[in-house]
Amino acid sequence: MNSDSEAQHPVCVVVGVGPGNGEAFARRFALEGYAVALLARRPARIEALAAELPLARAYPCDAADAASVETVFAKIEAEQGPVDTLIYNAGSGVWGDVESVSAEAFEAAWRINTFGLFVAARQVIPAMTARGRGSIIVVGATASLRGVAGTAAFAQAKAAQRALAQSLARHLWPKGVHVSLIIIDGVVGGPQTRASFPDRSEDFFVRPEAVADIALSLTRHDRSAWSFEVEARPFGEKW
Amino acid sequence: MNSDSEAQHPVCVVVGVGPGNGEAFARRFALEGYAVALLARRPARIEALAAELPLARAYPCDAADAASVETVFAKIEAEQGPVDTLIYNAGSGVWGDVESVSAEAFEAAWRINTFGLFVAARQVIPAMTARGRGSIIVVGATASLRGVAGTAAFAQAKAAQRALAQSLARHLWPKGVHVSLIIIDGVVGGPQTRASFPDRSEDFFVRPEAVADIALSLTRHDRSAWSFEVEARPFGEKW
Amino acid sequence: MNSDSEAQHPVCVVVGVGPGNGEAFARRFALEGYAVALLARRPARIEALAAELPLARAYPCDAADAASVETVFAKIEAEQGPVDTLIYNAGSGVWGDVESVSAEAFEAAWRINTFGLFVAARQVIPAMTARGRGSIIVVGATASLRGVAGTAAFAQAKAAQRALAQSLARHLWPKGVHVSLIIIDGVVGGPQTRASFPDRSEDFFVRPEAVADIALSLTRHDRSAWSFEVEARPFGEKW
Amino acid sequence: MNSDSEAQHPVCVVVGVGPGNGEAFARRFALEGYAVALLARRPARIEALAAELPLARAYPCDAADAASVETVFAKIEAEQGPVDTLIYNAGSGVWGDVESVSAEAFEAAWRINTFGLFVAARQVIPAMTARGRGSIIVVGATASLRGVAGTAAFAQAKAAQRALAQSLARHLWPKGVHVSLIIIDGVVGGPQTRASFPDRSEDFFVRPEAVADIALSLTRHDRSAWSFEVEARPFGEKW
Repeated sequence: MNSDSEAQHPVCVVVGVGPGNGEAFARRFALEGYAVALLARRPARIEALAAELPLARAYPCDAADAASVETVFAKIEAEQGPVDTLIYNAGSGVWGDVESVSAEAFEAAWRINTFGLFVAARQVIPAMTARGRGSIIVVGATASLRGVAGTAAFAQAKAAQRALAQSLARHLWPKGVHVSLIIIDGVVGGPQTRASFPDRSEDFFVRPEAVADIALSLTRHDRSAWSFEVEARPFGEKW
Repeated sequence: MNSDSEAQHPVCVVVGVGPGNGEAFARRFALEGYAVALLARRPARIEALAAELPLARAYPCDAADAASVETVFAKIEAEQGPVDTLIYNAGSGVWGDVESVSAEAFEAAWRINTFGLFVAARQVIPAMTARGRGSIIVVGATASLRGVAGTAAFAQAKAAQRALAQSLARHLWPKGVHVSLIIIDGVVGGPQTRASFPDRSEDFFVRPEAVADIALSLTRHDRSAWSFEVEARPFGEKW
Repeated sequence: MNSDSEAQHPVCVVVGVGPGNGEAFARRFALEGYAVALLARRPARIEALAAELPLARAYPCDAADAASVETVFAKIEAEQGPVDTLIYNAGSGVWGDVESVSAEAFEAAWRINTFGLFVAARQVIPAMTARGRGSIIVVGATASLRGVAGTAAFAQAKAAQRALAQSLARHLWPKGVHVSLIIIDGVVGGPQTRASFPDRSEDFFVRPEAVADIALSLTRHDRSAWSFEVEARPFGEKW
Repeated sequence: MNSDSEAQHPVCVVVGVGPGNGEAFARRFALEGYAVALLARRPARIEALAAELPLARAYPCDAADAASVETVFAKIEAEQGPVDTLIYNAGSGVWGDVESVSAEAFEAAWRINTFGLFVAARQVIPAMTARGRGSIIVVGATASLRGVAGTAAFAQAKAAQRALAQSLARHLWPKGVHVSLIIIDGVVGGPQTRASFPDRSEDFFVRPEAVADIALSLTRHDRSAWSFEVEARPFGEKW
């Protein structure tokens, strides 16, 4: 760690910092005094965001690439300290039915959503279990719960991610590490999605700030009453 | 309403105030400034508790009896004002397999867990939908999700309650009323249960105060990211 | 038993014989050589059907009334012999949201779908467990799995029925009695429903004969590979 | 096709022919007059089995390797004709928690259970949808439904497989192709597993012949009452 002041702050790693949930997680945890590590493939956004937030650092990283993840987490631990909270937000949707998605897209969906979580979790588990505390928060989607025709690639990846999160939870909860899964059941209101749904009112979208509030509250749950799966669904959503 | 000061406070009705979760809900919401209505069949505990808490009132009531519920809710609205939050915590467990439970116990389980919720919800829905806000929080159990051999009466009642809560949620969310279900997946640590499990450490129990924190947080969720079903499970619980 | 020939035939009781599934169950099991007991509130249809089918008998009965059920099952056992297969098909849908259904309809839905199953199952369990064999088949619906706004009464009743069926299954499978639940996820094509959907082709409906085939196959499953929950859904249905 | 007699027989492809379910599927469908294609990585068992069964052929194939699968299915279609029934039985269990399984085993589990199904399904879909009929049967496990601590690799793969099967079903059912998933909830009684559980009676095991009966019955379901998910669980199993 390169400074005393950082040492006093819990570390929160956000894997997958885009303009929606990822940025909101970073801002919310920074506001609460966490030293935040911002991970994304492209450096531009995370570097700009790191410059805005106290104690934040940008770590360009391909979450689907084990070697890249291992290198970056070693760096985070050296520079910011042991990880208190891991938020796994990587993984965009790939649409298409089984006939129209490519084998490459099918595999890439699993690699970013599931394999990346597997690798990232393994980097933080030793320190978390040694300290008997910590939080791993996985960001899921409606597709985590079921596969429809048009989600042949996305749903298998999200369902695999959910099963892995369950396995992590049942393995780590008794060691004091809170693993949880936020099911986003709606369209997150980032700049791109708002542009894609120009006719929708604000009520249609999941506010990233609200998801970040849920994530923060999950880190504060009394361990006598932990939740594993938490939905985030707009009040007007059909479900 | 009999005083100006009460009029400024949101009203929280707790149906089923026992020494575990019920009392904890009452204390937590009172601490947050709610005028709390305490409902239970027997007056002793709720009257003593009402005396302790500011703005709280005791309403003896049989939650399984429609007439009793209707009378009491009319009184609450007259004395404390329109209900902002309804916490439905009535319904104790009846154990036994299909051959050993009595038909009376089988029916009573449904009446207190499901029919009582139906009646109580109907008392508060008009005012809540008129104002476009409010919260109905139902306290479920592991048995809400599955029936095992020894829960022939309890599981059918809790599953019915859950399906009713889903129906309420899908009907009322779009009107701004947040219906949710807390699944208590463990043994709530009240005085009686602690005495029943003398060899267990504190880690074994769900702390009522932690459940009350969850309930309070449900009333504050941003409506762009509501949850319907929230688990409360001790970190060491097998699931 | 009033004749030797009947004694050689396994007995199948169908509770709830209407013009759709109920009649199809009766015809299918009669064809397989079962002595079929036909139960419905009104005698006209079951008496006409009994006259058509070999070894069938009509027993007017209100499945929601415990005394009526107990009397009829005693009579069946005396006249036809111990029950081999119980098909619980009673329970029609009551539509409406929580504000529009009456308390009477809400309770009646539970009584016919859940309480009636509880009472009927208890009549046949002793003989089935004594012989270490038998089949209890419950006819569920989409609403067994979830409550939507317009199924406030029906879904709570069907969810309760499903939880009870799970409890029955976990209690009775190890004793050799196969309890199962057929989830009808579509509109059963009886004379009334076909009239209600005049614009739909045959592909829209669940054929009662196909459901009866499923029921029969459930009684023949090798006990090393039993199913509890079996869906019956038209190939074109959205799910 | 190299003979007229073969042309008259529907073709069933069994992917993953081991000594348990795979062999039982092959024997059962051969008995019903299907021309069976036997796929496994190692040729010895499938060649011996093909020699025993009329119209059966052995196709050594690595189901996790897209090129190998594509080559073999082209060969099957040329030699045996268009595929009527695809049974996807590939995928053995890999045990271990998230800390003890290797990244290689984690990926291999997904590749054989999920990616292999994706590739195999794509080979048969065009001919099935063109004819408006066919059956794709996937063999799942308890782990298809949930992840526990010791199934970090297996559960994510089986959950992904299940979500993919759901996506296939919702895409293909309306085109007349029946996709289904058999959940094996117990230990299949093959020679190896019986040796691994020497103290267990026959009642402990799922009989492969019973699973094969379920698969055959799935191909004969009336399309007005199809099932997607079918459990195969020994009557004495705890669930």
